[in-house]
Amino acid sequence: MTSIDINCDLGESFGQFIMGNDDEVFPYISSCNIACGFHGGDPMHMENTIKKALHHDVQIGAHPSYPDLAGFGRRKIMLPPEELKAAIKYQIAALQGMVKSLGGELKYVKAHGALYNTIAHDKTEAEVFLTAVNEINPNLAIMGLARSPFQEYTRKFGFKFIREGFLDRRYQEDGSLMPRKEKGAVLDSVEASLKQFQSIAENGEVETASGKKIKMEVDSLCIHGDNPLATKILKAIQQLENKISIKKFNL
Amino acid sequence: MTSIDINCDLGESFGQFIMGNDDEVFPYISSCNIACGFHGGDPMHMENTIKKALHHDVQIGAHPSYPDLAGFGRRKIMLPPEELKAAIKYQIAALQGMVKSLGGELKYVKAHGALYNTIAHDKTEAEVFLTAVNEINPNLAIMGLARSPFQEYTRKFGFKFIREGFLDRRYQEDGSLMPRKEKGAVLDSVEASLKQFQSIAENGEVETASGKKIKMEVDSLCIHGDNPLATKILKAIQQLENKISIKKFNL
Amino acid sequence: MTSIDINCDLGESFGQFIMGNDDEVFPYISSCNIACGFHGGDPMHMENTIKKALHHDVQIGAHPSYPDLAGFGRRKIMLPPEELKAAIKYQIAALQGMVKSLGGELKYVKAHGALYNTIAHDKTEAEVFLTAVNEINPNLAIMGLARSPFQEYTRKFGFKFIREGFLDRRYQEDGSLMPRKEKGAVLDSVEASLKQFQSIAENGEVETASGKKIKMEVDSLCIHGDNPLATKILKAIQQLENKISIKKFNL
Amino acid sequence: MTSIDINCDLGESFGQFIMGNDDEVFPYISSCNIACGFHGGDPMHMENTIKKALHHDVQIGAHPSYPDLAGFGRRKIMLPPEELKAAIKYQIAALQGMVKSLGGELKYVKAHGALYNTIAHDKTEAEVFLTAVNEINPNLAIMGLARSPFQEYTRKFGFKFIREGFLDRRYQEDGSLMPRKEKGAVLDSVEASLKQFQSIAENGEVETASGKKIKMEVDSLCIHGDNPLATKILKAIQQLENKISIKKFNL
Repeated sequence: MTSIDINCDLGESFGQFIMGNDDEVFPYISSCNIACGFHGGDPMHMENTIKKALHHDVQIGAHPSYPDLAGFGRRKIMLPPEELKAAIKYQIAALQGMVKSLGGELKYVKAHGALYNTIAHDKTEAEVFLTAVNEINPNLAIMGLARSPFQEYTRKFGFKFIREGFLDRRYQEDGSLMPRKEKGAVLDSVEASLKQFQSIAENGEVETASGKKIKMEVDSLCIHGDNPLATKILKAIQQLENKISIKKFNL
Repeated sequence: MTSIDINCDLGESFGQFIMGNDDEVFPYISSCNIACGFHGGDPMHMENTIKKALHHDVQIGAHPSYPDLAGFGRRKIMLPPEELKAAIKYQIAALQGMVKSLGGELKYVKAHGALYNTIAHDKTEAEVFLTAVNEINPNLAIMGLARSPFQEYTRKFGFKFIREGFLDRRYQEDGSLMPRKEKGAVLDSVEASLKQFQSIAENGEVETASGKKIKMEVDSLCIHGDNPLATKILKAIQQLENKISIKKFNL
Repeated sequence: MTSIDINCDLGESFGQFIMGNDDEVFPYISSCNIACGFHGGDPMHMENTIKKALHHDVQIGAHPSYPDLAGFGRRKIMLPPEELKAAIKYQIAALQGMVKSLGGELKYVKAHGALYNTIAHDKTEAEVFLTAVNEINPNLAIMGLARSPFQEYTRKFGFKFIREGFLDRRYQEDGSLMPRKEKGAVLDSVEASLKQFQSIAENGEVETASGKKIKMEVDSLCIHGDNPLATKILKAIQQLENKISIKKFNL
Repeated sequence: MTSIDINCDLGESFGQFIMGNDDEVFPYISSCNIACGFHGGDPMHMENTIKKALHHDVQIGAHPSYPDLAGFGRRKIMLPPEELKAAIKYQIAALQGMVKSLGGELKYVKAHGALYNTIAHDKTEAEVFLTAVNEINPNLAIMGLARSPFQEYTRKFGFKFIREGFLDRRYQEDGSLMPRKEKGAVLDSVEASLKQFQSIAENGEVETASGKKIKMEVDSLCIHGDNPLATKILKAIQQLENKISIKKFNL
């Protein structure tokens, strides 16, 4: 591999409540997932984030969530399928229209938080999600957890699937992420993230919590914007003397 | 005149909180202004309302508002211009994408409540509104208060303006509506609304609170969905033995 | 039995979104559960509802909910115990202070919607709920589903328990309510509710969906304010020629 | 003067959205104004902030706001008097009950943001505010802008008034604060704030933007928790070799 995509969840601030350090990470990433107002983000922050993405030539994805500002989209909300579908459509449509209005193009969709985790494994809810995207724009790509059942659901549905790995999260042997509640779920040093970057990007494998190496071929690597080490990790990646450049994933 | 458009604000319910009697008025109207989630409406109600509009062949407009669910958009919210513009863009984009996803086409935009009243006279805020619409879709028409300064702002901006009159509100001599707080602001009988319909639709004039007749040429007449007489008024209009049919305004 | 309490969930309107017919039912009930702003209700509607309750000499209970305006508190929201406890404390404290400010006294607490159903059976969450009430005011009574496990949890915790039955909901053989989603869950005639009233109030038993009679001794009977038959049922109860009067439950 | 109170607005975080550095400033202050959920704060953050205040022996005030999470309470919201009164009562009652439940006592009320600025000069709205406090608890003190008309309204109403000055904001010659939008409104160095502290606390006067000194006798000095220099300023004050100690204002 000679290049890889790095993506980050951005535009998650709400009014005066600031989340993440968007301005610091923008220069180092190639794709960004912009919040659509349901877990974070509001129209003003969305508009400003789109402008920054276009300025930095960073590819734009929609980052819809369960409707849950109070829980930042990290809680599973039980919605009837029709209600969930409408909520996802609304969010993607809003962002897509705003991106277009500023001269850009929405390229993909990545679910946020509890919705991301649910559809990774739950076929019924995954199909609700994919149906929503399909109704708004069947040409969008879908970004999701590499090696998850969702990968197969998505391809069977006819979408291009962007396999996502994580730079700052620890993996379990089955390829899933260690839950945030557990100790060690988040890699807590620049070195550990750097090592994970090299392992995944160069060799297509990752060392799990148990020490075992498993296959991990991905198209994009995520770094969390609210990770206080994010900028340091991104700078360290940039300074690596290797042939892997940071580039948008192919569509 | 042989035909006129009748429009109604619909899709304003929020979750279990039901507003208006959408199902009852749909058969009698030719255009509907669908709430976009900021004063009422939520993705599920929006989706369902779009489907009903398409089923009844009713023309669809977006009905954006200040962000104010608690005040149903009837309070003026002081927003910096950039924030207001983004809020309007978000709402129109969301509805437009959902309408398109269901096989329809968004035709026009009509501001809601305090935003409608503000831009009718306030040039600065009117231009923020028109800029927002223009950025999302310059081909949309703009519906607004007939005879208001907004009519001129809109035409100068290059948009088609849909002149709106009211079936159930009393006018003042300058062509403005009597404020809701004042007694007599809402016509309280089927007969009064019927008379206003005939006067405006047939003769292009309306009797004001003072008894004086003023010119009132309109392209569309609004009836409020939460008016308890709405259905009776619409049925009475349908049964009038005249040559005025209810038809979508021309675009 | 010579008297029984009738309670109703009131004050659930939010801004311009009106829920229920509070004014119509107030003259016929002896207790009311006032929404606290998390599933419905807002400070203005709460204040007005308290005033009406005091005017009609109707006993006041707090009606806290999961934080879920969009779902009207009918969806289970997964909250960490400490977060749920704080949310319940906040709601009860707000209502209690407002009742006191108007010269009244808060007497009891009844959970709303999904929270009511969850704590009826889930001991862990029941204890979070009871701890919250206890921290705000250990002298409050707790109203809950008669015959449910929650009845025992509450008494062991040291609270007075108000056993609640339902006038307009159908029971299952184990004493639980038929879920709202199922056909026949809500009694759909005045006669059926009247019969259920007499059976529970006079004989301490109720006929279940299967036709079997089960014991159902209660201190208070609930009628839902958004039941379109509510006022008719309440008037019919008032006109019954029997010796059962509607009176506040004993504390 | 040998001692003065320092207060800070705390508990303003909402869910995962963190505002301010509460933990850092708690050791240096003597009073804290806790958000009540309408501009920031939620029940969990309120509960935790109360516990910290009790742990640090910091006096607790309520910090109610217009209902405006999206604008952080910094926008004027036009509410009918009865609605504003109910909103303020709700917030104070909620916090007061929670403070009491944890073994503390609510001592005073300080309005937040746009509400603070409005009542400083607007007599009608000031009286709505004072009536609300009076209905919930007439023994609370009121903190407000020193030298403002509100000082007189409050005393005439019968409340004890806590005169507040600002450590990190620049004054105008009439004793009002330079509006946040203007350049220089916020003092941008530790030294400037330290000088303002000494001038007000030792001499009861402050240097205004124009260079003129005006009288400024206060009972409490506010430092903003979201001021990035807050902790440094507080440490510098603590290290001053003077006789002014930081102590709760007298009630």
